[in-house]
Amino acid sequence: MTPFELAVQFLFQLGAILVVCRLVGLVAERLGQPPVVSEMIAGVCLGPSLLGALAPEVSAELFPKESMKVLFPVAQIGLSLYMFIIGLEFRGDIMRQRVAASMGVSLSGMTVQFGLGALVGWLIYNHTPLFPEGVPQTAAMLFMGASMCITAFPMLARILQHKGLTGTTLGTVVLGAGAIDDAAAWCMLAVVLASFTGDFTDAAFSIGGGFGYAVLVMGVVRPLLRRWARGVEERGRLSDREYAMLLALMCLGAWWTERIHLHAVFGAFVMGAAMPRGVVSKSIIARTQPLAVALFLPLFFTYSGLNTRLGLLDESGLWLIALGVLAAAVLGKSVACWGAARASGIPNREALGIGVLMNARGMMELIIINIGLERGVISPEIFAMLAIMAIVTTLMTSPILELVLRGGRKLDGAPQSSAPAPEH
Amino acid sequence: MTPFELAVQFLFQLGAILVVCRLVGLVAERLGQPPVVSEMIAGVCLGPSLLGALAPEVSAELFPKESMKVLFPVAQIGLSLYMFIIGLEFRGDIMRQRVAASMGVSLSGMTVQFGLGALVGWLIYNHTPLFPEGVPQTAAMLFMGASMCITAFPMLARILQHKGLTGTTLGTVVLGAGAIDDAAAWCMLAVVLASFTGDFTDAAFSIGGGFGYAVLVMGVVRPLLRRWARGVEERGRLSDREYAMLLALMCLGAWWTERIHLHAVFGAFVMGAAMPRGVVSKSIIARTQPLAVALFLPLFFTYSGLNTRLGLLDESGLWLIALGVLAAAVLGKSVACWGAARASGIPNREALGIGVLMNARGMMELIIINIGLERGVISPEIFAMLAIMAIVTTLMTSPILELVLRGGRKLDGAPQSSAPAPEH
Repeated sequence: MTPFELAVQFLFQLGAILVVCRLVGLVAERLGQPPVVSEMIAGVCLGPSLLGALAPEVSAELFPKESMKVLFPVAQIGLSLYMFIIGLEFRGDIMRQRVAASMGVSLSGMTVQFGLGALVGWLIYNHTPLFPEGVPQTAAMLFMGASMCITAFPMLARILQHKGLTGTTLGTVVLGAGAIDDAAAWCMLAVVLASFTGDFTDAAFSIGGGFGYAVLVMGVVRPLLRRWARGVEERGRLSDREYAMLLALMCLGAWWTERIHLHAVFGAFVMGAAMPRGVVSKSIIARTQPLAVALFLPLFFTYSGLNTRLGLLDESGLWLIALGVLAAAVLGKSVACWGAARASGIPNREALGIGVLMNARGMMELIIINIGLERGVISPEIFAMLAIMAIVTTLMTSPILELVLRGGRKLDGAPQSSAPAPEH
Repeated sequence: MTPFELAVQFLFQLGAILVVCRLVGLVAERLGQPPVVSEMIAGVCLGPSLLGALAPEVSAELFPKESMKVLFPVAQIGLSLYMFIIGLEFRGDIMRQRVAASMGVSLSGMTVQFGLGALVGWLIYNHTPLFPEGVPQTAAMLFMGASMCITAFPMLARILQHKGLTGTTLGTVVLGAGAIDDAAAWCMLAVVLASFTGDFTDAAFSIGGGFGYAVLVMGVVRPLLRRWARGVEERGRLSDREYAMLLALMCLGAWWTERIHLHAVFGAFVMGAAMPRGVVSKSIIARTQPLAVALFLPLFFTYSGLNTRLGLLDESGLWLIALGVLAAAVLGKSVACWGAARASGIPNREALGIGVLMNARGMMELIIINIGLERGVISPEIFAMLAIMAIVTTLMTSPILELVLRGGRKLDGAPQSSAPAPEH
């Protein structure tokens, strides 16, 4: 396809995706699901699982394989913009007070879940023919462990923002733990892929590059921006040119972490967290959020749904294994995180909320398993099981969180006013 | 390249383009040039004319051919969003009062310019070997006429907005005439390409499809939106979901006019013009403009610059012809439009401003000549001449407009307050 044909296709896809997201949203929102869930389901509907199965020629016409070359990069930009905003809203002050809690929640959730995941990997490896031939047992166990560890960091961010909980203790602990979890899971994935190919340079590059990036941004870029921001505060206004330059910084940060195979979301999130608070952060959020959330972010969640093929699980035996994977995932993550939160002195209601939120795997899971499938570590069947686990844990999150938080006193750090939370 | 590699590349390109636009802007703005000129020049600098000539391997590394498959569609989205905003700011009421002036300016500018352009085409065709072999004389003359007729509709819009003139008589006449000009030039181009291939179905499809679209949107969509907007006015707020649906409408409109080979800008502009005024239009502009203008719009202007190869004009004879083309373009368009504006009773200062603005060819010219080059109607040398004409007429616009409008009384319709114009 020529760039022109791709542009025609892309304009139509964008319109169609927005319309289908809205149609799914009409039902999903009545069931208490946030917009992100509608977007995921819209993707699954438009992808091979529904539209592709019912009307293969319409699906091939609407989403030809080559158009993914446009959809994916634009989805990454949309996601990066969003994670930049989440970084901008990140409360470093609460995080510092709560760093022990975040670390505890993250570590205990990961250790328990990694153990359970590796066990599931061992069981599937030794009792079924589901892993592709030639995959070593260690790679299978490591991959299942790492992929089940992941938390839906961007999705958590979106649910917390939707419910107006970003600045609360609950929100901060969850965002902190989610960020640590995800960074660790991506590093583990790097090690798994390295152990699979036998080349550990890539893994070292990912981990070292990510660490170096965080140190550079927080240690050098952040103080420089703070000094520069004094002038902006005096003027009381961020100019359009300055805004464009901050967006350029975000793009370059996202590029670097994507380039070293860590993922664009980290670069964008860290850059957002490094931005000076006050006029600068408020202006960036006000200018970036509406369009990024309405037009570009749905592309990311829909894109992932588009690549999911649920139809592969056509035997009851496979469905049973899928159920087992799901049970291991839910128990391992939510119970361990709840326990760790309680142990660090967080009240029970909030600790339950943390457990529920950390359990959501969302689309990060889908990204990791897409990579695993592409590199031949897992089969399409295992892919579909993990995809179901991702979708079910995501669907559970919002209604259960609602139940847990319903009634009772205001959460620590929640806004005092009764203003409605932003709607997206 | 895989979608992942394209995403990595795209994030870097976006960052690099924003930084180079800013660097060029540091100089260009001192010379009284608006941001759009910096963006065009940034593209020429990053493209084969400068970076490609000085450091071919860096250029090939930074902008591999395949990455255009992402850059172009995203640039189209950026441009569509922008033209949607311009449509939203379009003052239908002033246009209706001034429709005769707009039509007069547009028609006289086009007739004179088309005649001169066709004459230039005839001269080049019969006295130089510059047209590719096998191009019929009529196609050569029609193409030169049509391509020189064009006005930089999106660029005019941007300059007018930059100077805070969108709602004035000057701004409205220019926008109206620019829209008519461009729609007519695209229709002519369709006829030229049809006369070249001998297939007139495509041309009929473009013209009929564009006309049908305008009638449908203005006759059906607009009244429906107006009725719906009463509820929004009562609430005083456009919800995020409603905003997303209006963006979907814009995408589908842009898709349709791009699909029928008219150009996405028309679909987006007409859809913007059809939006209900008041809370709806203000909300859309406030939410869409900052990010679209800062991040996505520069991509469009830079993309066009990237595709320009000035190095082809390496003989003095060719430079002379290029000068002749330029002179014919400037005289034909600005004098005829000024005359028509005067004839319809517009004061001299504003008529001069209209002539100056209509003379800017900007990037629409580059799009048309890219199509001509791709289809083999013109040679790379003629392409470079027309590209220079486009760039010079664009560079002239802002400083001369400044001279013409300097001092004197406020323009009719200009905002009364002394608030500074939006900065982009």
